[in-house]
Amino acid sequence: MSHRNKLKILNDPIYGFITIPDALIFDLIEHPYFQRLRRITQLGLTYLVYPGAYHTRFHHALGAMHLMGKAVRILRSKGHLITEEEEQAVNIAILLHDIGHGPFSHALENSIVPGIKHEKLSLEFMKALNQEFDGRLELAIQIFTNQYPKKFLHQLISSQLDMDRLDYLRRDCFYTGVSEGQVNSERLITMLNVADDQLVVDSKGIYSVEKFIVARRLMYWQVYLHKTVLSAEFLLIKILSRARAVYNEQMIIPSVLKRFIRENLPAEYSSLLPYYAQLDDYDIMSAIKEWQHHDDPVLSMLCKSLLKRKLLGAYISNTLPDHTLVQNIRECVASRYGIRHEDTAFLVFNEALTNNAYDPQRHRINLLYRDGSLQDIALAADQLNISALAQPVTKHFLFYPKECWPKG
Amino acid sequence: MSHRNKLKILNDPIYGFITIPDALIFDLIEHPYFQRLRRITQLGLTYLVYPGAYHTRFHHALGAMHLMGKAVRILRSKGHLITEEEEQAVNIAILLHDIGHGPFSHALENSIVPGIKHEKLSLEFMKALNQEFDGRLELAIQIFTNQYPKKFLHQLISSQLDMDRLDYLRRDCFYTGVSEGQVNSERLITMLNVADDQLVVDSKGIYSVEKFIVARRLMYWQVYLHKTVLSAEFLLIKILSRARAVYNEQMIIPSVLKRFIRENLPAEYSSLLPYYAQLDDYDIMSAIKEWQHHDDPVLSMLCKSLLKRKLLGAYISNTLPDHTLVQNIRECVASRYGIRHEDTAFLVFNEALTNNAYDPQRHRINLLYRDGSLQDIALAADQLNISALAQPVTKHFLFYPKECWPKG
Amino acid sequence: MSHRNKLKILNDPIYGFITIPDALIFDLIEHPYFQRLRRITQLGLTYLVYPGAYHTRFHHALGAMHLMGKAVRILRSKGHLITEEEEQAVNIAILLHDIGHGPFSHALENSIVPGIKHEKLSLEFMKALNQEFDGRLELAIQIFTNQYPKKFLHQLISSQLDMDRLDYLRRDCFYTGVSEGQVNSERLITMLNVADDQLVVDSKGIYSVEKFIVARRLMYWQVYLHKTVLSAEFLLIKILSRARAVYNEQMIIPSVLKRFIRENLPAEYSSLLPYYAQLDDYDIMSAIKEWQHHDDPVLSMLCKSLLKRKLLGAYISNTLPDHTLVQNIRECVASRYGIRHEDTAFLVFNEALTNNAYDPQRHRINLLYRDGSLQDIALAADQLNISALAQPVTKHFLFYPKECWPKG
Amino acid sequence: MSHRNKLKILNDPIYGFITIPDALIFDLIEHPYFQRLRRITQLGLTYLVYPGAYHTRFHHALGAMHLMGKAVRILRSKGHLITEEEEQAVNIAILLHDIGHGPFSHALENSIVPGIKHEKLSLEFMKALNQEFDGRLELAIQIFTNQYPKKFLHQLISSQLDMDRLDYLRRDCFYTGVSEGQVNSERLITMLNVADDQLVVDSKGIYSVEKFIVARRLMYWQVYLHKTVLSAEFLLIKILSRARAVYNEQMIIPSVLKRFIRENLPAEYSSLLPYYAQLDDYDIMSAIKEWQHHDDPVLSMLCKSLLKRKLLGAYISNTLPDHTLVQNIRECVASRYGIRHEDTAFLVFNEALTNNAYDPQRHRINLLYRDGSLQDIALAADQLNISALAQPVTKHFLFYPKECWPKG
Repeated sequence: MSHRNKLKILNDPIYGFITIPDALIFDLIEHPYFQRLRRITQLGLTYLVYPGAYHTRFHHALGAMHLMGKAVRILRSKGHLITEEEEQAVNIAILLHDIGHGPFSHALENSIVPGIKHEKLSLEFMKALNQEFDGRLELAIQIFTNQYPKKFLHQLISSQLDMDRLDYLRRDCFYTGVSEGQVNSERLITMLNVADDQLVVDSKGIYSVEKFIVARRLMYWQVYLHKTVLSAEFLLIKILSRARAVYNEQMIIPSVLKRFIRENLPAEYSSLLPYYAQLDDYDIMSAIKEWQHHDDPVLSMLCKSLLKRKLLGAYISNTLPDHTLVQNIRECVASRYGIRHEDTAFLVFNEALTNNAYDPQRHRINLLYRDGSLQDIALAADQLNISALAQPVTKHFLFYPKECWPKG
Repeated sequence: MSHRNKLKILNDPIYGFITIPDALIFDLIEHPYFQRLRRITQLGLTYLVYPGAYHTRFHHALGAMHLMGKAVRILRSKGHLITEEEEQAVNIAILLHDIGHGPFSHALENSIVPGIKHEKLSLEFMKALNQEFDGRLELAIQIFTNQYPKKFLHQLISSQLDMDRLDYLRRDCFYTGVSEGQVNSERLITMLNVADDQLVVDSKGIYSVEKFIVARRLMYWQVYLHKTVLSAEFLLIKILSRARAVYNEQMIIPSVLKRFIRENLPAEYSSLLPYYAQLDDYDIMSAIKEWQHHDDPVLSMLCKSLLKRKLLGAYISNTLPDHTLVQNIRECVASRYGIRHEDTAFLVFNEALTNNAYDPQRHRINLLYRDGSLQDIALAADQLNISALAQPVTKHFLFYPKECWPKG
Repeated sequence: MSHRNKLKILNDPIYGFITIPDALIFDLIEHPYFQRLRRITQLGLTYLVYPGAYHTRFHHALGAMHLMGKAVRILRSKGHLITEEEEQAVNIAILLHDIGHGPFSHALENSIVPGIKHEKLSLEFMKALNQEFDGRLELAIQIFTNQYPKKFLHQLISSQLDMDRLDYLRRDCFYTGVSEGQVNSERLITMLNVADDQLVVDSKGIYSVEKFIVARRLMYWQVYLHKTVLSAEFLLIKILSRARAVYNEQMIIPSVLKRFIRENLPAEYSSLLPYYAQLDDYDIMSAIKEWQHHDDPVLSMLCKSLLKRKLLGAYISNTLPDHTLVQNIRECVASRYGIRHEDTAFLVFNEALTNNAYDPQRHRINLLYRDGSLQDIALAADQLNISALAQPVTKHFLFYPKECWPKG
Repeated sequence: MSHRNKLKILNDPIYGFITIPDALIFDLIEHPYFQRLRRITQLGLTYLVYPGAYHTRFHHALGAMHLMGKAVRILRSKGHLITEEEEQAVNIAILLHDIGHGPFSHALENSIVPGIKHEKLSLEFMKALNQEFDGRLELAIQIFTNQYPKKFLHQLISSQLDMDRLDYLRRDCFYTGVSEGQVNSERLITMLNVADDQLVVDSKGIYSVEKFIVARRLMYWQVYLHKTVLSAEFLLIKILSRARAVYNEQMIIPSVLKRFIRENLPAEYSSLLPYYAQLDDYDIMSAIKEWQHHDDPVLSMLCKSLLKRKLLGAYISNTLPDHTLVQNIRECVASRYGIRHEDTAFLVFNEALTNNAYDPQRHRINLLYRDGSLQDIALAADQLNISALAQPVTKHFLFYPKECWPKG
């Protein structure tokens, strides 16, 4: 394929057009590893609550790369040197930052390959691609792993205001239709700057950053931690967990998934990559469609529940749910569905979830004033209590079959 | 579940909110038959070209129902009687008008159950639901099949300006990001009227209708008949066709799909409904993922081609492609991939596709003037040659493996 | 004009269409009193900073009426009785709530007719119209003045979440392009409810209300209290004030404005209505264009400053500006421009401005929980410190000719 | 003012942000000649029909400059050389292309300074500014007057697809809310190219260009030539014409307008520039507000008609209106309003208006094919009859006081 044909433009409902900046990036996008992301939804099962939210990891990665292009232009226009090689490297790093995600994104993290985070897997993918592309991803990997001297480049990929967040908040908001979460990513990028080799925000951007933090928090409670979304996602986790428990050779499983259900996977990850690189949402959903007819009543019930969207109820409280309440529900479940008491934990369970909208421990947002001084947004905001937002909020979710909730 | 809980509001990125109008419709939406549509994309494999286009039949059906609510309000405000029963019936009819669609929508129509159109299947679904819901869909079925005296109600469901088209054009445009195809559905609805029991458009809406026809035509050539989209969809068809040809009992196939691959299905459809009602995109994609490793080189090649997005090339012309050209390509394919000559038809094939933006033979758009007279838009338009648009345009597409296109 | 012709639809860039609900309201809109609002900008001179912000009081009033229609539909759907007469009355009340605004809206309030608020003037207009329309505005006036038993109807017109605010925040945001201020008015309206005859918000709307409060605060600092906007608006005030001071019979003044410049207006307002009802932005700007050539150097300088957009500088601080600083600037102004020291107060002056985003003293926002209980949003918000937002923030603005700011 | 402060960003509701590219352009924008455009509406009195349409020449000029920046980037990325000097020059030329517009834009062209087109006046303004800025607008003037060798640069400023049109169509559509007229300017710009020193469109842009032509035509009939808009604009013309006819020294007129009403202006224009440069919408409206009380019944009636929005009726036909009909209306007007028969021509008059959506005589749109060949869009379009659109359509408008239209 000629160079000419490789310079492509893609339609994006949000940004209008996304231009693929060069031939190497074009080839990375064409690679089956990256094409796999077309088959992995960005928001897992969120579409069961927000019927528009089918957008994929593939699309998000392209969007984040598009924003990276804007950020590089803005920072250069403010006098910060970014070489052509560095530009390509940050583009690659953001494009591939999530390539290690498994099916249904966050929902199944830890369920497919227990104990390994997707960032670690993304790095493995990058290394494999680096080998395949003759070391041309070296700089991207250095920046991704924060080993490159110019630290602000890494922060474009991972920080409070990285291109990942700026794209996913906007995109998730767009596809869910939760318009209150809208973030003007392009505007925020216009206000980015660099000081002391840190990514900072020009001081006049203070209200935009406040709005960003509030919008992000709103998206957490209305989308990411929406109780029905969580109910669906924990159902998915329980399904995989139950499938492992009842696994035998007769079980119908998509071939590529079988390996991950059957075996205790080695801690050493790289040998698994070729198999993992074939896994996507279709394997999981297809398995669930088969397992709804499985002999095990727990597995069958969990699968039907998901396919027919008869999800578990969720009860939210600020403290752990009452032990007696939980026991009563379990007994109901055991007798009503003929399930052994020990197995009721697949249908009645408690999860604690925490959100803090602004986490200065991990990543700070600094404002850059005209006199060159820096100040943490949490201190600078005159009125909006960002310190309050920095406090983590934990909520306890008790999930249970609706028929077994105590009456009255 | 109490009545109160049944009145639900859904988020929609396009219309903001969609309200579910009553409890019966709520129950129909909850039914597994309708929930299945969550797993069937509206535009098949179009997402391989427009990466945002993952929206589903489920979402489209809800959107069309939302527009129906607007249309009913507008027509009533212009003095046309629509009873509450009729309102519920048109809501149900539009909600279920596409419930008979199989996996990947239009792409596989005729491939899963050869010889039966999805409208026929939709009617079977409605009949089954009517039985389950004690005859409460009777009126909806009468309107859907155009046996109800008030003909304009049927036209809200099926005509040039029905709610189906008004939603899908807008929705497809929104999710593909092809902004030129944008149709202002709400505005068009505002101009609907009824004359002589026909759905018509107030004469001042002439420019909006012209714009609608032009936009629709643009969507055809840029999206629905986009050569790469077609290439992907014909690949899908060839995969199923090849799978049938090489089927044997050892073949790995998702259980629910197996019946449709293995058997010559009976012309009498209703007995198949329970199985068909379980089929969705996941079965097809999961099968393709298995078959990429199948022994048959044709099937395996077709499947890999789709999964890795190495699609067939497409050559478009106004006449049938040259016979010698086709033969040369076939020979190349046979020798290059070690495929028997007779099987090359799975990889090299010609398809003729026709589009006419305005088809007065099937459905006319009449304008209503202030003096009560009616005129066909094709005659009324003073300048834009809608008659020209009414001429069908046929294009011939030759699909072929890119490596075998003659050089020079 | 026939009834048929009176049912009109207007285009609105924000809501798509605005329908005029009945013939009486159509006639009120056609009345010269209301048509005058076409010539009064909603945001005064804000267009000097945000070049898109030329929208008018006329447009805002129609938009607020449009939202009122939605609110009435929503509240009725939740079982609250609103009669047809009440519906017409709230529509009229919101349509006319700002009809008493003078030229350049808030900027010149207190400058044209000192000591009288626009609400008082709006009421006078309503009374005059009520007489002209044979008492058909009686109920609207009762609701506007909060003398009608159903208090929640008044709150639709004046409260924290009234249709006035819901339209102007959205509209101002739209026309300024300050996208962070975006408020999803339709969504908030969907969550309105009535409890104990008070307008409240369903508890699930908590995040939307939080977002509304944060967006409103952002609009204050980025638009309404933007220092350059304030600089322009205070210039306008000083111009009128100076014109009064130097008034004589030879001065060129648009006829209708002359009365308001020349005379000490009577406290008793109604006799002035016929003259006031002819005043609009054009009189003020036309006068300023004449006065730029006036003999008085202060008046001339102020007018040129506005027309050429050479505005006064603004220095913002949390305390009163230093007295010596102010004196130094005044001396510079006196000597540089040949102005008497006592007149320098027209060019160098201090203003204190206060904003609190949520003012529970005046109007509370109560959330309605499923169990029927009510809670103030400031107490209910789990994390966002709305109490903090409820604290008024005062800033001091010192305005001065830029050439006279001390160097160094 | 330091260089740093001169790099400014403006909010635009359509494009988000508009960046002022350099200090010279910043100074041109600050100049009173350009600031005057803040007081001239883009669409004249169109706001009497579309209440959102108050946008100004100032805003449009900035928007067109913003698009120019995009066009330059795109053309450079396709390998066409545009030097920094040329870039600045096209930016200046597009910024100032309409600076010669008088009050109420097109409406009063030929009424204020009869016989001189605004392009001619724009050039005079540019020459004056060129002198003031030491010859730094030389290149811009060469390009504006099409005397620069690279012809495609001129076409960016004036041709079928120039930045002027691409901005005004989008902006007028946005502010009127006539969404059918929406043009995706950014997308079209992406498809611009240069061949044989002509601005052309890449062939794949064919549907976008078709859509552009159809949208433009729609805007003509729905906005620019809307009968009520025309009625208001011709009223304005008649007002000025009548004011000239009855002028005497006692007449109240804003000072700057007086010169243009009183005198027969010299054909030699440049001496008038200083006065013309002070004229804006406020002078006209202010005069009309005074003249509604003038002794002459014709002038007074015309002015009241505009201020109260009691506009003349408009009757549209394809041929000249019947002579007897016109005479009957004139007689009615004469007797009903006590106006001399010869003066009735100010209230009853006929105008012929012509629109052709695509005018290949003046400017052709050429498509550039992959093989390097060019073809006129009118020939290339396979189905949409652009040749038909190229035929001018003339309509005759008869305006008349509504009370005098013959009954029955």
